[in-house]
Amino acid sequence: MPEKLGKMIVGVDLGGSKINAILSDSSGNIKKQDLRDSRAHEGPDAVIKRIIESIKQVATRADIAGIGIGAAGACDVATGVITLSPNLPGWYNIPLKDIIQREFDLPVYLENDATAAALGEHCFGGGVGIDNLIYICVGTGIGGGILIDGQLYHGASGSAGEIGHMTIDINGPRCPCGNSGCWETLASGTALAREAVKRIEAGARTSILNFADGQLEKVSAHRVYLATREGDRLANELISQTAHYLGVGLVNIVNIFNPQLILIGGGLSRMGQLLLEPATKVVRERAYKLPARAVRIELARLGADAEALGAAALVLESS
Amino acid sequence: MPEKLGKMIVGVDLGGSKINAILSDSSGNIKKQDLRDSRAHEGPDAVIKRIIESIKQVATRADIAGIGIGAAGACDVATGVITLSPNLPGWYNIPLKDIIQREFDLPVYLENDATAAALGEHCFGGGVGIDNLIYICVGTGIGGGILIDGQLYHGASGSAGEIGHMTIDINGPRCPCGNSGCWETLASGTALAREAVKRIEAGARTSILNFADGQLEKVSAHRVYLATREGDRLANELISQTAHYLGVGLVNIVNIFNPQLILIGGGLSRMGQLLLEPATKVVRERAYKLPARAVRIELARLGADAEALGAAALVLESS
Repeated sequence: MPEKLGKMIVGVDLGGSKINAILSDSSGNIKKQDLRDSRAHEGPDAVIKRIIESIKQVATRADIAGIGIGAAGACDVATGVITLSPNLPGWYNIPLKDIIQREFDLPVYLENDATAAALGEHCFGGGVGIDNLIYICVGTGIGGGILIDGQLYHGASGSAGEIGHMTIDINGPRCPCGNSGCWETLASGTALAREAVKRIEAGARTSILNFADGQLEKVSAHRVYLATREGDRLANELISQTAHYLGVGLVNIVNIFNPQLILIGGGLSRMGQLLLEPATKVVRERAYKLPARAVRIELARLGADAEALGAAALVLESS
Repeated sequence: MPEKLGKMIVGVDLGGSKINAILSDSSGNIKKQDLRDSRAHEGPDAVIKRIIESIKQVATRADIAGIGIGAAGACDVATGVITLSPNLPGWYNIPLKDIIQREFDLPVYLENDATAAALGEHCFGGGVGIDNLIYICVGTGIGGGILIDGQLYHGASGSAGEIGHMTIDINGPRCPCGNSGCWETLASGTALAREAVKRIEAGARTSILNFADGQLEKVSAHRVYLATREGDRLANELISQTAHYLGVGLVNIVNIFNPQLILIGGGLSRMGQLLLEPATKVVRERAYKLPARAVRIELARLGADAEALGAAALVLESS
């Protein structure tokens, strides 16, 4: 392998719960990987130490070209500063790029995680050859990455793509972000689990609890999904409802951006067509005909590594 | 004037109710103007004849550099074809650029009207020097023009910017577009007039009818506005409600695009701060802090000529 080492790159996905560091070649083939808890509650210094350890774990032997980082927060891409992060307590104006650069004496690039994932899918996944695409991560929340004319779109202060916080129900639930009826309060994994708990507490007949060790606090989107596999009616109904909400938000994205491609990633995308097909049906029914005909809505292809691979791709794009 | 004629340009705003043709210099100073009814119900051939007459009216003496057209519909900018228009009956795949080009033997450029207006404000109005801005036309409906990195954004099939058709109230009124609870069903002039009529029919005490010759069918957003000037309580309440809905949609735009500048044009913008101030307050309260701090929300400056001036600017941008 040594002769190829000069072309290897490191990508780091810094999330609120996990750090995912990968060593990749320039085609997005992952050669080495280190996944660890971020333990975000310990604060920036501890997390940064863990990022450095994680990079060293994948890159010890490699002569790498650079390091890309996709972080769960708003990033000033030009300066490499994480401005603010709802999922990383204490991260205000942290110059992560400089810190990592000093440690490794290598080019370092910083990007928002969902935005990085859009680039990852564009370079190595479902968006190869497509210059106008929206990547949507549907998991605990809903995040978005926007690629326009082959360029990542950041907005005026690096926080563009907060599509999970568009109101789709003006009378809907209050969101921790301060807004109401946000898309992610209705169509995220958190929303799905919350609705399941509510219905179980109200006495609904369902096998969902069987998949959650009988404990309400263990009910999750994934466990609701498992119950559908055994034909659980409530579980199916809840996922249909989530797919409907997902579709209503997708209509907005389609009407606003008229994109070529929307890629759905994140934890909920593992439900596959069970989620995607009814959501896409809402788009066909309710979006403007022209953009509805123009758009393909597909499952993202890189799975949980989209962010880290996109981060690695930042190095390729910049060199 | 003859020595300057070589630099004159023609801009045409083709709307569902009016054709506005202007002759402008390269600084956006309108030298001549022709405003006439489009009589869209007569179909494309009649309307095209009227466009040609209107251009001849402003450009007879001028040695003009080119003609720009902003049209109320989805446009294929590359081919100069109006693909589809909800406001121009019968306009399917009309090659307007070629038709006008043949008539005048001059370079012709075609663009969606709201998108053209964004360019107009960028070149001659409130957006000079700002490369990332959203122009929002709030009138009969709500339309949007998107400028990213100094470039107009069209989307995959020329229909990007249909921001008036994003759902903000999932349980809201059915929209003629096929969607429900669209922003424009709640925050447009049409919505405001509809609510006023509803409240008057329900017996509300108000002077609004005095401004509408006592006739319900003459109640319009502008007439509701006139009633506020005499301190009419219902009129004030209705405009506050409209401003609130306007603000909720603006929050979405701010969170999604993180723009530097949002310019509000269209008929309702004539209400000025009465509309803008409460709408902006909603943005400050509900949008993400980072993009809310980054954005300026202002009244557009070019008024009813924004589209025509933007159309003229297409010629400048392309030469």
